[in-house]
Amino acid sequence: MNEKIKLTITYDGTQFHGWQVQKGKKTVQSTLQDAVEQVAGKRNSITGCSRTDAKVHANEFVCHTDFLNIPCEKIPMAINAHLPEAVAVKNAEIVPEDFHARYSCLGKEYIYKIFNSHYRDPFLVNRAMFYPKPLDEKAMNDALCAVEGKKDFRSFMAQGSKIEDTVREIKYCDISRCGDMLTLRVAADGFLYNMVRIIVGTAIMASEKNLTYDDVSRIIASCDRKNAGPTAPPSGLYLNKVFY
Amino acid sequence: MNEKIKLTITYDGTQFHGWQVQKGKKTVQSTLQDAVEQVAGKRNSITGCSRTDAKVHANEFVCHTDFLNIPCEKIPMAINAHLPEAVAVKNAEIVPEDFHARYSCLGKEYIYKIFNSHYRDPFLVNRAMFYPKPLDEKAMNDALCAVEGKKDFRSFMAQGSKIEDTVREIKYCDISRCGDMLTLRVAADGFLYNMVRIIVGTAIMASEKNLTYDDVSRIIASCDRKNAGPTAPPSGLYLNKVFY
Repeated sequence: MNEKIKLTITYDGTQFHGWQVQKGKKTVQSTLQDAVEQVAGKRNSITGCSRTDAKVHANEFVCHTDFLNIPCEKIPMAINAHLPEAVAVKNAEIVPEDFHARYSCLGKEYIYKIFNSHYRDPFLVNRAMFYPKPLDEKAMNDALCAVEGKKDFRSFMAQGSKIEDTVREIKYCDISRCGDMLTLRVAADGFLYNMVRIIVGTAIMASEKNLTYDDVSRIIASCDRKNAGPTAPPSGLYLNKVFY
Repeated sequence: MNEKIKLTITYDGTQFHGWQVQKGKKTVQSTLQDAVEQVAGKRNSITGCSRTDAKVHANEFVCHTDFLNIPCEKIPMAINAHLPEAVAVKNAEIVPEDFHARYSCLGKEYIYKIFNSHYRDPFLVNRAMFYPKPLDEKAMNDALCAVEGKKDFRSFMAQGSKIEDTVREIKYCDISRCGDMLTLRVAADGFLYNMVRIIVGTAIMASEKNLTYDDVSRIIASCDRKNAGPTAPPSGLYLNKVFY
């Protein structure tokens, strides 16, 4: 029977050079492959739902691998026993052979955390962007509405990226405040390179420079990366949900 | 004018050998003294509200030092510029000469976090105790009621401690659950060595062994450390409030 295992994992990305295997660097993919090898007794390839950059976190990240000959409910504990504390398998389930962590994915939700306080919080080091000047989340939300919908997001793609088709559909994008913590939540059918971090930089610019909905619409229409805000640091970014 | 400065700080205790200066070890007190020296231009002594153990955290820790000749509202930023990310000054205020961070303290509140889930959470490493077996917070609360009030807490003091007067008054002690996170909250006029961590170990024992209010009352009355539960690990413990 040709079945696959779908693994849902979570990781603190601080110590990793992202998801994808890179020679000589500690990545989540190679760390997980090492652990699965201990359980399976052979080197299984593991395919992730997306790449994540160095220092980016995942509350939920999905990958698939070959069928493991142990009951599904025992897989998380079995693999976790061989993983460092920064990575954990939350769930394992059998999926049909045609399931693919990346190609079957319908969309993803990211969150980005901004700690907006005049003092640093030691517990948020590497977990949120620290931004000491007051931010106006109302203004940010008004401006961010402009990114919702199916649009060409070339202005929100890292320069040098070779992707040709830069049209994506953002399902929702909003910012909420809980005390000093701002959380941006954005879901789309797909994301360009650095897209969320550039959206965050643009949202902060919207608060700082009083950008409106129309201003952000013009930034999008310009298809010019230079018009959008700076790329926010990776450590505030979390892959939060993966939709199938 | 003989005035003092009261500093309210917060720290992630993971990398520190507790508050108190120890030769050759990185402690919060020595780290803070180094930073204050940079601001004051001389070595000021800093007196804390209590000792904390290695790996124990503080959401709020109070200390006093000599008057610094800069406006109070600028002190946190000035000192924070010289502190590592794991420590931050939240507030500074001028207090009368007779204020003493330790002797003027009327009581303290600690919290202890237990992550009660079958999988580890990478974001709670060194921040909460991981306890995979289900805990019954109702049973724990019922049993914990027995520690409230003015009592001899010798059973809840680390063996080898030389304190003679082991009577303390616990104002409140309860556990609440939010999803998989249990938070024990306890306030007292003072705490014996390892007292909170032994209370946590006893609370877990109460869930595991169905201890009742009466059982815990007997543990207290025995004045014998061996009857209480094990000492929970330091990394779940946070000094949360200091009362003056």
